Amino acid sequence: MATSSGHTLKAFDDDLDRLRALISEMGGLAEHAIREAMRCLQQRDVEGAAKIVENDAKLDALEVETERRAVQLIALRAPMAGDLRDVVAALKISGVVERIGDYAKNIAKRVPLLETMGNIEPLSLLPEMARIATEMVHDVLTAFVERDADAALRVMERDHAVDDFYDSIFRTLLTHMMEDPQSIGQSAHLLFIAKNIERAGDHATNIAEMVYYAATGQHMTEAQTGKKP
Amino acid sequence: MATSSGHTLKAFDDDLDRLRALISEMGGLAEHAIREAMRCLQQRDVEGAAKIVENDAKLDALEVETERRAVQLIALRAPMAGDLRDVVAALKISGVVERIGDYAKNIAKRVPLLETMGNIEPLSLLPEMARIATEMVHDVLTAFVERDADAALRVMERDHAVDDFYDSIFRTLLTHMMEDPQSIGQSAHLLFIAKNIERAGDHATNIAEMVYYAATGQHMTEAQTGKKP
Repeated sequence: MATSSGHTLKAFDDDLDRLRALISEMGGLAEHAIREAMRCLQQRDVEGAAKIVENDAKLDALEVETERRAVQLIALRAPMAGDLRDVVAALKISGVVERIGDYAKNIAKRVPLLETMGNIEPLSLLPEMARIATEMVHDVLTAFVERDADAALRVMERDHAVDDFYDSIFRTLLTHMMEDPQSIGQSAHLLFIAKNIERAGDHATNIAEMVYYAATGQHMTEAQTGKKP
Repeated sequence: MATSSGHTLKAFDDDLDRLRALISEMGGLAEHAIREAMRCLQQRDVEGAAKIVENDAKLDALEVETERRAVQLIALRAPMAGDLRDVVAALKISGVVERIGDYAKNIAKRVPLLETMGNIEPLSLLPEMARIATEMVHDVLTAFVERDADAALRVMERDHAVDDFYDSIFRTLLTHMMEDPQSIGQSAHLLFIAKNIERAGDHATNIAEMVYYAATGQHMTEAQTGKKP
């Protein structure tokens, strides 16, 4: 149990740092998976895509490890207030990062279905959209490691750019489907890919809310989340 | 901290029962939200759909409450082994049920966009698919409350039926889009609705894995999860 002795607190801090390091590692893998999924999509790299699907097991294993350590930390050191918020945030964030990895995997699974597709416009927009989303993921996890509530708020603001990209790609794909009905199947897969990236951006904002709460003990106001009603 | 005294153990059991009751309550709301979303979709009930979106806040609040109680339980009573697994399962399951509620909300948000749509075939298939998915959610939460690992396994088996429905609806919608390009926008929304229901079924199987682990201390084997590679 945590006491006021410096030694025990240091042990807690070390444990917490290890938790944060695990989450940074997960974040790095998830970002890489999304960027790599975009490369495979653009280059129709079916083998590369299969590797993304395979590598997702690493993220799953790291989530299990994070959960194990977080629960152990709570049970053994009984952290209070801000410390407890940090550990619970770590537990929840690892679950969200794992899901972001799942989106990369879902995108990768569609690459073989798109192998014969021509270079239509959304194919060049998607990686740009994904770039913003992965930057959001990267920056919000840095904000978590640095307990930086302001940085978390700044991440939220960028989700509008991802949403705008999504709306634009959605419309472009529908137009493409109408003009070229033969492409409808492949365009439908691209719709889902765009949706997966949009969801990754949403998850970055979910993490931002968790980071803000962990760092401040306050939930973001509705004005701060900027959520559409 | 838990000791071998009957009183303290009873206090822990009572706390755990309250956690389970909270999750049953969340499950009931999520199931109702999906069924109601299907009704609103079929009857183009835009007002009813708005109510589903509004009511989702209740699920969010219950998730926060479950988390608060679970963390308190771990910190104050330091449960071990099976007890700890149960509490952590409750913490995670509440997060998954909240996401199932989000799918219902996402479906409801599309109802106004489909107000003018004709009665195409997928509209009658979707509620049937949703019926299986919500039954899975219901049964897996019952398995959690009753710590019934076998019942959790039986829930997994039904996910294939949901997946088959999804594949069939996906193909039907693509055909419909090709035959009637004017319907492409609305059909795209139906594609996402079908995907949301398919994801709800997936989440029921995720919960089944958690229930199995909480009840037995063993992870399901790959043969048991029946996951496609």
